[in-house]
Amino acid sequence: MKIDELYAILRRRGVLWPTAEIYGGTQGLYDYGPLGAELKRRIEEAWRAWFVGLSEDYYWIDPAEIVPEAVVRASGHLENFTDPEVTCAKCQKSFRADTVLEAARPDGVDGLSPAQIGELLVSAHARCPNCGSTELSVPRPFNMMFAVSLGVGDGERAYLRPETAQSSYLAFARMWEVGRKALPLGIAVIGRAYRNEIAPRQLLFRMRAFTQAELQIFFDPASFPVPLDSVATLDLPVVRAGPRLAGNETAVLTSVADLVSHGGLPEFYAYHLAHTYRFYREVLGIPADRIRLWEKSNEERAFYNRIQFDVEVRLDSLGGFKEIGAVHYRGDYDLTRHGAGSGKDLSIAKPDGSGRLVPHVLELTFGPDRALWALADVELATDGERTLWRLPSPLAPFTVGVFPLIRKLHTEFARSLASTLVNEGIRVDLDTAGTIGKRYARADEAGTPYCVTVDGTTVDPASPDHGTVTLRERDSKAQRRVRPEELVAVLRVAQHPLRPPPVERPAPAVPAPE
Amino acid sequence: MKIDELYAILRRRGVLWPTAEIYGGTQGLYDYGPLGAELKRRIEEAWRAWFVGLSEDYYWIDPAEIVPEAVVRASGHLENFTDPEVTCAKCQKSFRADTVLEAARPDGVDGLSPAQIGELLVSAHARCPNCGSTELSVPRPFNMMFAVSLGVGDGERAYLRPETAQSSYLAFARMWEVGRKALPLGIAVIGRAYRNEIAPRQLLFRMRAFTQAELQIFFDPASFPVPLDSVATLDLPVVRAGPRLAGNETAVLTSVADLVSHGGLPEFYAYHLAHTYRFYREVLGIPADRIRLWEKSNEERAFYNRIQFDVEVRLDSLGGFKEIGAVHYRGDYDLTRHGAGSGKDLSIAKPDGSGRLVPHVLELTFGPDRALWALADVELATDGERTLWRLPSPLAPFTVGVFPLIRKLHTEFARSLASTLVNEGIRVDLDTAGTIGKRYARADEAGTPYCVTVDGTTVDPASPDHGTVTLRERDSKAQRRVRPEELVAVLRVAQHPLRPPPVERPAPAVPAPE
Repeated sequence: MKIDELYAILRRRGVLWPTAEIYGGTQGLYDYGPLGAELKRRIEEAWRAWFVGLSEDYYWIDPAEIVPEAVVRASGHLENFTDPEVTCAKCQKSFRADTVLEAARPDGVDGLSPAQIGELLVSAHARCPNCGSTELSVPRPFNMMFAVSLGVGDGERAYLRPETAQSSYLAFARMWEVGRKALPLGIAVIGRAYRNEIAPRQLLFRMRAFTQAELQIFFDPASFPVPLDSVATLDLPVVRAGPRLAGNETAVLTSVADLVSHGGLPEFYAYHLAHTYRFYREVLGIPADRIRLWEKSNEERAFYNRIQFDVEVRLDSLGGFKEIGAVHYRGDYDLTRHGAGSGKDLSIAKPDGSGRLVPHVLELTFGPDRALWALADVELATDGERTLWRLPSPLAPFTVGVFPLIRKLHTEFARSLASTLVNEGIRVDLDTAGTIGKRYARADEAGTPYCVTVDGTTVDPASPDHGTVTLRERDSKAQRRVRPEELVAVLRVAQHPLRPPPVERPAPAVPAPE
Repeated sequence: MKIDELYAILRRRGVLWPTAEIYGGTQGLYDYGPLGAELKRRIEEAWRAWFVGLSEDYYWIDPAEIVPEAVVRASGHLENFTDPEVTCAKCQKSFRADTVLEAARPDGVDGLSPAQIGELLVSAHARCPNCGSTELSVPRPFNMMFAVSLGVGDGERAYLRPETAQSSYLAFARMWEVGRKALPLGIAVIGRAYRNEIAPRQLLFRMRAFTQAELQIFFDPASFPVPLDSVATLDLPVVRAGPRLAGNETAVLTSVADLVSHGGLPEFYAYHLAHTYRFYREVLGIPADRIRLWEKSNEERAFYNRIQFDVEVRLDSLGGFKEIGAVHYRGDYDLTRHGAGSGKDLSIAKPDGSGRLVPHVLELTFGPDRALWALADVELATDGERTLWRLPSPLAPFTVGVFPLIRKLHTEFARSLASTLVNEGIRVDLDTAGTIGKRYARADEAGTPYCVTVDGTTVDPASPDHGTVTLRERDSKAQRRVRPEELVAVLRVAQHPLRPPPVERPAPAVPAPE
């Protein structure tokens, strides 16, 4: 489906719409309606269960999203978190320089410096997207953070965090005290990050306020044991930087064992990359041929990243592979910088007594907004007659629609059944309006994996099938009569989130004080 | 417990700490650690289940927290959302004028205008809290919203929303289309609101970034039927404005029926006030003698509020009754203002065909951060030997602690049991470190309602009690052996959120198009 067609369905069904829509909307900001809010929550919960569940030493925290200036000075964002901006001398409008250049230079602008962009804008005779003038300024760096002023007067300068990762780095010292005082230690945050995009676009893919789910794993590079055997034979669709830069962008299925033994990846990296891939396949249900793990080269990735694979999903609505998440090996950059910035020693004593160590960081990052869009792009389809959203059942906003066949006769039972199911923790949509066909259609569109119909037999005390309901499965449309106990069991399984087996927690080399 | 003592425990256990703690913290901003994040999440989920569960026409949405300037101009926040600020001519520091006055005038400053505060500051010879000078400026209004600039150059001015309510008002038109096109229609938001407090204080009670859970119910004042009978005999501890202003602040237990028949409250208001009270009692578990429903007088409440009761809880750590939530009958103020501000007609056709109506709003507002602190204040106690947090079990971060008695012998079974329980949706804390006594103590402090111990009998295949574990109940410390099936049943019940029976959805007078 094209982006506009898909967005129209999602807007009509109240999945999402522009913020302050009655005021004409706001660029780069979106509101999630009932279906979207629940779907996004489910995606986030699934991410949390999967990744925080990877180890008994991975924790979820919920920090504030405003940070003082000293934090973003130390992290480098104050200096470096910029996009190149050009202003048109004729109409005074401003634009992202790389976007302007893209229009004049179809072979791409990735990896160019602002200075190179400036030269190319001139040599390519780039024009103002608004008025067509070629009188464009030299590109200037534009900082993408939102600044706020805390307190009265000039106040204290602070920023809406540009990435949730910073909150985990700030929390390391406290979490070290709260936890077992042993590495690896994982700190996950699911929350807002903010970027003042010069030109928000592609809906949920370049927003000004968006959600990140990020797990920062702090570890000792000399010792980060992982049960690699559990994933050694898993084939990952990797696009390595070397062949790619030589012109071959084809993903090559490579086993995790191979990536370690011949591919040069550390075991801890390959292990977490494998579980990241599994999450997209097994939890989000993205088909294998739509996923690739795209390695960034030395030149392409941030200087502090030592290894980076982006997880990309092919989206028809956005014209190709798009990044949904990534795995970054960031070395000791973050704690070193915040140690220096805060004046607090963030190193820890090595367990073997051989001195101190600034923990390294492995970052698993994920965009729930983008994932929601990807699930719509990949799994929502219409064939003219039927619009069907094949959401994985644990992610569906509702697990079951409950329909009284005839409103006057069957609603009381349906309502009581719905209440029973809600009390069992099942996500229920009681729908009493319109023909059963219309209600199935609405449920199909919402991605609801099961519907049950309450009919005359259900409410007839004389019938041997008293209490049974018709259970209809979304994808196959298959129907069968079931008893309430069986119904609860089926629905419980349907909405059960998947988790990989957690890594066993070894006894810490330095036991935590009791 | 005193505020510092309680905060020390919460900080040590990683419930919460100041944002950017390693940089010395940030006034009015806090991070929630693993226990705090989960507890806050549970409080929010309990609120959502209870209040959104009140009716089939109440929905939960998740909107962006940045709104364009036109929104806060229409809502009145741009003009009126101010605190009075004074600056000291000598030391140049700024303060909240009412706080400065409070120190010089112990009989309170509520309801005073900035002009009155200014006069009283002079007549009371108020002094600068920093340097002691009496050279204080005339109080100026200080707008408490955080402004941000969207886009490049001067950009588009926008604000971090000062209350989540605005997001629901903005969504009304879209939700009317998405829903059944019938009133009452409820739109709930749980999310961040931001206030640039001049002087943040009392920890979670006056934060600069905080969470609100608010349900806005849009209704026709001529017809908002509620099943009042279901709560008619419930006694509510009300402090009416009249007697209170005459000097009597005692809460009087008054039945819901009485509040309607003699107390002048509309049925819809009394019904929702009753369920609000029930939430604090039955879900949060606050003792009756610590709650009062405090009516605001005409002069005290915002001019658009027609009826307002604050829900106040008595907190020892903060020296008295503190507001946690409120019920506001806001009339048609909000949709009228946003209709005018946006130029979009937000009125709806009356179902009886007698013209158009701007829906009225009943707002149920709640502070999850404050509620978390209240649960610590009320339920966390230490007797020197034992620190115990009697959290209601559905709210506890962990429902069960799983302890292998001897690490080497019993951890494998304990881990497998923990995994089984997690797969059943139970919140589990596997703790292998230290003596069983130490582990019980840690669990008691975390509010974990149950602990199970895996011992020699559990893992002995020859024992008739093979597979059974010792289940220990937090408050009574009572222990008994249980089989796994019984364990799962007990824990499921323990973490089950309470919900009131939902109000039946009547057929809409104007049926929704199908």
